[in-house]
Amino acid sequence: MNDKNNALEQSQTSKQVTPWDVKDVVDYDKLIKEFGVTKIDEEDLKYLKTLAQKRGLDEHIFLRRGLFYAHMDLKKVIELHKRREPIFLYTGRSPGSGEMHLGHLIPFQFTKYLQQLFDCNLYIEIPDDEKFLFKKKIEHLNDVEEFVKKDIEHITAVGFNVDKTFIFRTSKYIGIMYPLLLKIAKKITFSQARNTFGFEGESNIGQIFYPSIQIAPTMFESAQCLIPCAIDQNPYFLLQRDFAQKLGFYKNATILSKFLPALTGSTGKMSASNEESAILLTDNANTIKKKINKYAFSGGQETLELHRELGGNCEIDVSFQWLKMFLMEDDEELEQIRIAYESGKLLSGELKKICIEKVQNVIEEHQRRLEEVRANNEVEILMKTGILAKNMWEKNFLD
Amino acid sequence: MNDKNNALEQSQTSKQVTPWDVKDVVDYDKLIKEFGVTKIDEEDLKYLKTLAQKRGLDEHIFLRRGLFYAHMDLKKVIELHKRREPIFLYTGRSPGSGEMHLGHLIPFQFTKYLQQLFDCNLYIEIPDDEKFLFKKKIEHLNDVEEFVKKDIEHITAVGFNVDKTFIFRTSKYIGIMYPLLLKIAKKITFSQARNTFGFEGESNIGQIFYPSIQIAPTMFESAQCLIPCAIDQNPYFLLQRDFAQKLGFYKNATILSKFLPALTGSTGKMSASNEESAILLTDNANTIKKKINKYAFSGGQETLELHRELGGNCEIDVSFQWLKMFLMEDDEELEQIRIAYESGKLLSGELKKICIEKVQNVIEEHQRRLEEVRANNEVEILMKTGILAKNMWEKNFLD
Repeated sequence: MNDKNNALEQSQTSKQVTPWDVKDVVDYDKLIKEFGVTKIDEEDLKYLKTLAQKRGLDEHIFLRRGLFYAHMDLKKVIELHKRREPIFLYTGRSPGSGEMHLGHLIPFQFTKYLQQLFDCNLYIEIPDDEKFLFKKKIEHLNDVEEFVKKDIEHITAVGFNVDKTFIFRTSKYIGIMYPLLLKIAKKITFSQARNTFGFEGESNIGQIFYPSIQIAPTMFESAQCLIPCAIDQNPYFLLQRDFAQKLGFYKNATILSKFLPALTGSTGKMSASNEESAILLTDNANTIKKKINKYAFSGGQETLELHRELGGNCEIDVSFQWLKMFLMEDDEELEQIRIAYESGKLLSGELKKICIEKVQNVIEEHQRRLEEVRANNEVEILMKTGILAKNMWEKNFLD
Repeated sequence: MNDKNNALEQSQTSKQVTPWDVKDVVDYDKLIKEFGVTKIDEEDLKYLKTLAQKRGLDEHIFLRRGLFYAHMDLKKVIELHKRREPIFLYTGRSPGSGEMHLGHLIPFQFTKYLQQLFDCNLYIEIPDDEKFLFKKKIEHLNDVEEFVKKDIEHITAVGFNVDKTFIFRTSKYIGIMYPLLLKIAKKITFSQARNTFGFEGESNIGQIFYPSIQIAPTMFESAQCLIPCAIDQNPYFLLQRDFAQKLGFYKNATILSKFLPALTGSTGKMSASNEESAILLTDNANTIKKKINKYAFSGGQETLELHRELGGNCEIDVSFQWLKMFLMEDDEELEQIRIAYESGKLLSGELKKICIEKVQNVIEEHQRRLEEVRANNEVEILMKTGILAKNMWEKNFLD
C-alpha cells in the first residue's frame, strides 16, 4: 500500500457501514446489533406523537414509516423532557464530496421537527476539515470550499428556529471551541479511537484527532444532547459516552435513520458522487423526471403482459420505497398504490409518475425556500446574528 | 497501567532525551548521533562571526563556548543567506510546568542574536495546549493559563525586533493557522509519529495531533526556516523534513543547544519543577545568592586543606560551568579562574561569589527590562500591533 492517505478508506472494507463509507446491501436489524443501539419502540413513538399533538403537529412520516428506527438513550431524553429538564439537538453535514441530494435533506427535516417538538437549541456543525483529512482525492482545502457555502444555504433552507439555531464551520469556530476539543482529545486514547473507527499505522494524525471535533458539540451545553443522524455516524457518539460524565457533561443520545435508497437500487446509501443515483437539490423538474424515468430501479416485470399477470414487487421498487419512506404522507393512498402495483393494475411508468410529482414538489419547495434564504440573508442569522449564534461567538469554553 | 494519560511519559523512560523529558546524565556527542544532527564546525562559526562583525556584534558566547553546538542544515541557511535569499526564525516556549528560569532565557537570547545577524522575521509559538495534553497532573486548562501571561512577558523582555517578531498562543491563533495544520496533519501517519515520539495505544489523540501544531510555524513563510532550540526539540523538525517540500515549503533547519546544567549538578536539564535546582527569572538578588551558596554543586574538595592541596574540579563544578557556558564573556578571565580553582588557590565559596554576581546582573537586567515591557505594553506590540504581528492576524493560510 503505497497510497498512505487512502489507508483508512481501504481498511474499512471489512465493515459494511462506517462513518465514511456504506457498502451495497444494508441489513438494518444487523446494524442495530453492530452499532450497539436499540430499536425505537411503541412507547417512544407514543410519547413523541403526544408531544407533536400538543404542538399542533402530526406524527412525523419518518417515524411512522420507520425511516428513523433506532436510538441510544431516547428513553432518557423523554424522561428528562417529562421532568422539564433542558435538552438540546446537534447534527451536522460534512461538505466536499459533492452537491447535496434529496437523501441529505432527511436528517435536517427531521431535526427541524424535533426542534419544534422540544422547542430547544440546535447546533449544526459543518466539519469542513473532515473530507480533506479522509479523502485522498481531495488534495486542496479549496476543493471543499466551493461546496461549503452551497451546503449551508441548503441546510438553512430547511427552516430552523432562527434564534435557537447555530450553524458553524469547524475551521471558523475552532478558535472558540479549541479548549473543549483539548479536554475531549485528552480523554480518548489511540486504542479507543482505533477500536471505534479502525485507524491503523497509515492513518494520518488529523484523522485520529478528528473524533474530538465531531464529538465537541455534544458538550456545547450542560444538558442532555440528542443527535438526529444516519446510523453510520453513531460510532462517534458511542465513544462520547465513555468519558462525557468525567468531563462533567451528559452522555449523548442519538435518534438514527436508515439511508434513503439510491435511485439505482433500493439498498445502500444515496451518493452524490454517483450523479445518476441522486436527485440533487438543484435539479429542475425536467431533470428529476428524466432521472427517475431513466434510473429509478423498478420492481415491475420485464414486459407489460408479465406485469399485468404477475404484478410488481414493492420491496425492491425505488419509486415505491421513496413514497413509503418519506414522500407519501397518506397511509391509505400508499396502501392503494401498493395493492394496485402488486396486482399488476398500476404500471411501473405510472408509479414513477406519482413519485416524480412528489419529488418535484419537495425540490420545488426547497428551491423556493432557497430563494428566501438568499433574499433574507438567513445564513447570516443562523451563523452570526441570531440569539443563539451570537451567544456562541461570545462563549468561553475555558472554564 | 491504569494511568492512561501518563502512558506517554512512562513510555519515554527507555530514551534519555525526548521533547518531554530529559534524564540525568547527558552525553552530547551521543545525542548528535541519536538525533541525526551535525556538529557546528569551524567554517559555520567563521561565517556567523564575520556576519556578526558586519553588524557591529561580537561572536556570541553561546557559540564560542559550545552551548549551541549542533544543527540540521545550517550550511544551507548560510548558503541561502550568502545568495541574499530570505530566511526566517522560529522558536517557542510551552507554558505550564512552572516559572521560567535562567535556562529558559538561553534559546531566546540566542534567537535575538540570530535575528540581529540575519535581520529577519521571527515567530515565537506559545503552545498553551501542549502541557495539558502531555502532563497528567495538569487537569485543567486554567492551570496553564496562569503561566501564559508571565511567560510571554519574560520572552518579550529579551527584546526582539518589534516589527519583525510575532508571538502567538496556539489556542488563540489556531483559528487562522488551522488550514495549515490540516495540510501538515494529512502528511503525517500514525506510524511516523509513533516512530518519532514513541506514541502508543494509550497516547491520547490530542498528543498524536500535537506535532502538527509545533511544526506549523516552520511553514509560516515560503522561505528557509531556522529554529534555535534545545536539542530535545529536534525530533519535530526532523519529521518536518519528510514532507515539507511536498507541501511546497522548505525543509527546516535547526541550531541546537545543550541544556544549562541544573544548580544541583552539572548534567541534565535545569528544571523549574524542582525549585531548588533553578534560578527563577523572578528571584531577587538575595534569593539568588542563597540558592547558589546552598545548592550549586561544587567541584571543590571536602576540606579547605584538601582543596588547597588537590584543587577543584571545574568539569563538575556548576558555578564554573555556568561561567563558562554563558556568564563570563572574557576568555582570559575565565582561564585565570580555571587555573586558580584547579590549583586550589581559588576556593569554592569564592568561585560561587563570582558566579552569584554574574547571575544577579543577568536577572537584574532582565527584571529591569520586564518593567519596561509592562510600562510600554511591549507584549501588545509583539502579539498584535507590530508590523509582522498585524500581518499574521490578517493572514489566510487557505491557499
